[in-house]
Amino acid sequence: MEEDEFGIISRYFRHLSLSTEGVVLGPGDDCAVVAIPPGHQVCVSTDTLTEGVHFPIACAPEIVASRCLAANLSDLAAMGASPHSFLLALTLPEADGDWLREFAAALGDGSRHYAIPLVGGNLCKGPLSLTITVMGTVPVSGAILRSGANALDDVYVTGSLGDAGAGLAAYQSGERSGYLVDRYCAPSPRVGVGIALRGLATAMIDISDGLVAELGHIASESHVGIRAEAALLPLSEDLRCSADEAVCRSMALFAGDDYELCFTAQASSRSAIAQVANNLNLPLTRIGTVTTDAEQVCVVDEQGQALDLSVAGYRHF
Amino acid sequence: MEEDEFGIISRYFRHLSLSTEGVVLGPGDDCAVVAIPPGHQVCVSTDTLTEGVHFPIACAPEIVASRCLAANLSDLAAMGASPHSFLLALTLPEADGDWLREFAAALGDGSRHYAIPLVGGNLCKGPLSLTITVMGTVPVSGAILRSGANALDDVYVTGSLGDAGAGLAAYQSGERSGYLVDRYCAPSPRVGVGIALRGLATAMIDISDGLVAELGHIASESHVGIRAEAALLPLSEDLRCSADEAVCRSMALFAGDDYELCFTAQASSRSAIAQVANNLNLPLTRIGTVTTDAEQVCVVDEQGQALDLSVAGYRHF
Repeated sequence: MEEDEFGIISRYFRHLSLSTEGVVLGPGDDCAVVAIPPGHQVCVSTDTLTEGVHFPIACAPEIVASRCLAANLSDLAAMGASPHSFLLALTLPEADGDWLREFAAALGDGSRHYAIPLVGGNLCKGPLSLTITVMGTVPVSGAILRSGANALDDVYVTGSLGDAGAGLAAYQSGERSGYLVDRYCAPSPRVGVGIALRGLATAMIDISDGLVAELGHIASESHVGIRAEAALLPLSEDLRCSADEAVCRSMALFAGDDYELCFTAQASSRSAIAQVANNLNLPLTRIGTVTTDAEQVCVVDEQGQALDLSVAGYRHF
Repeated sequence: MEEDEFGIISRYFRHLSLSTEGVVLGPGDDCAVVAIPPGHQVCVSTDTLTEGVHFPIACAPEIVASRCLAANLSDLAAMGASPHSFLLALTLPEADGDWLREFAAALGDGSRHYAIPLVGGNLCKGPLSLTITVMGTVPVSGAILRSGANALDDVYVTGSLGDAGAGLAAYQSGERSGYLVDRYCAPSPRVGVGIALRGLATAMIDISDGLVAELGHIASESHVGIRAEAALLPLSEDLRCSADEAVCRSMALFAGDDYELCFTAQASSRSAIAQVANNLNLPLTRIGTVTTDAEQVCVVDEQGQALDLSVAGYRHF
């Protein structure tokens, strides 16, 4: 390899340094310098995606870029934060120009779409893996936490569930296009709806590790229970056509990677939430209720029978 | 492995979430929430350290922790920033309890020493590698950039140079203690002096990839030249005793990992800089001058002859 780290960064990634008023100094110095609007706080999260774990081995660089940026933006969305800037630490087995070009182009598309400039990064040699750190802003005390759910609140999810799980299975069996595969390869983090739910959602989390696991996090952090109805889970037409009902339901409950949001809100907010759904043209579906059964998550079927939820969510180790 | 990501994080890393007024919400939600003091901007940097590249294979977990935190704090120091908070993305081949306990203890020591709380993280499975993202604060427009050097400015370095390079060589030949080995295994990022040089240093960079390479960065970013004198390079007594003069000089010019600072300042600041050195009990040594020879770095020997600097700095690819 002829180019060093500095040459690679400036050749492939310079166009990702969008000029915004939040960026005082972009990549190229020891640190980036960013400005936070007065009256705001910073939401920050870091996520690693590794080949063979978070994306398939030898998958297209644009899928790597899309999934990695989406996973991180989804964490901002779950706080109700506005995207501010991000940093990329990229570990590559070799400086493959074609790969880098396609990766940087796809990352640039996402960066422009969500108006989130790249402000810093690191390149090193090793097995393919990416760590993105993302920063967003919320008005002071405006972040929507996992811990704010109260008994009798409604429980909602955005969009449809299980598509990415089915999309991954389809991808693994060789499909490279179609709605479900796209939902896995190029997820849409719900940044706009997260912001629109400020002041409405009492608790929020993104659905990266499967709905049941995420409901469990809200329940334990808020010290409440959650009762959801399987019949209310929003399933896409494509998912319904791809498998029988039991498989679809299982995908919706346990599969990860959807990057939808799950949130709670007071019953008095129903019409405001319907208005948000309407404005953003995205279904916001009420799937259950917060209960007083501390830290218990229960999903019932049409007969009111509790489903067996012992199938674990995604385990990282 | 019995524990999942969440169990590991809460078991080993919870004590790193120091409570400071800058941390509104620590680890455990989709994002951390941090508060920036009014009138300040955020300096942010991300760095990956990989086993076998940035630290030796099978080296002690406390060395991994010390070197990784130091490398990142050094980036803050180079901007004149005060440490604020950091995030850790840790990739591990397996959840080894002993390793994690020692690693987290050493990271905790550094975190407390520099008053920089851990606010978020990520754990995943794979070859050992760490990406730390560090945030610091500077007064608005107070960050010290690489691009601010002007012709006739003095050029300084902190501490002594070449120790870590010699320490790595000693470590690789089996030494596990002593001043030089410690300088490699447990570097001291120059956070305090970085802050003290606000308003004095016109340009600054940390010395992670070797002095000549870093002088080159200041020269190219500031569109100036730099002329340094080899005889002025500060060498520790331990380094002088470990090798002949040519080897010491080469270590001081080209070896990385010292995490000292290199900065420029107007000649009129000499007495103020001497006062900083005195207050912090750390040598700040004038090694040369900024010139008008655009982007040329030259190091001369005692006879005024330019040394051959074609030995490259560390190449990441």
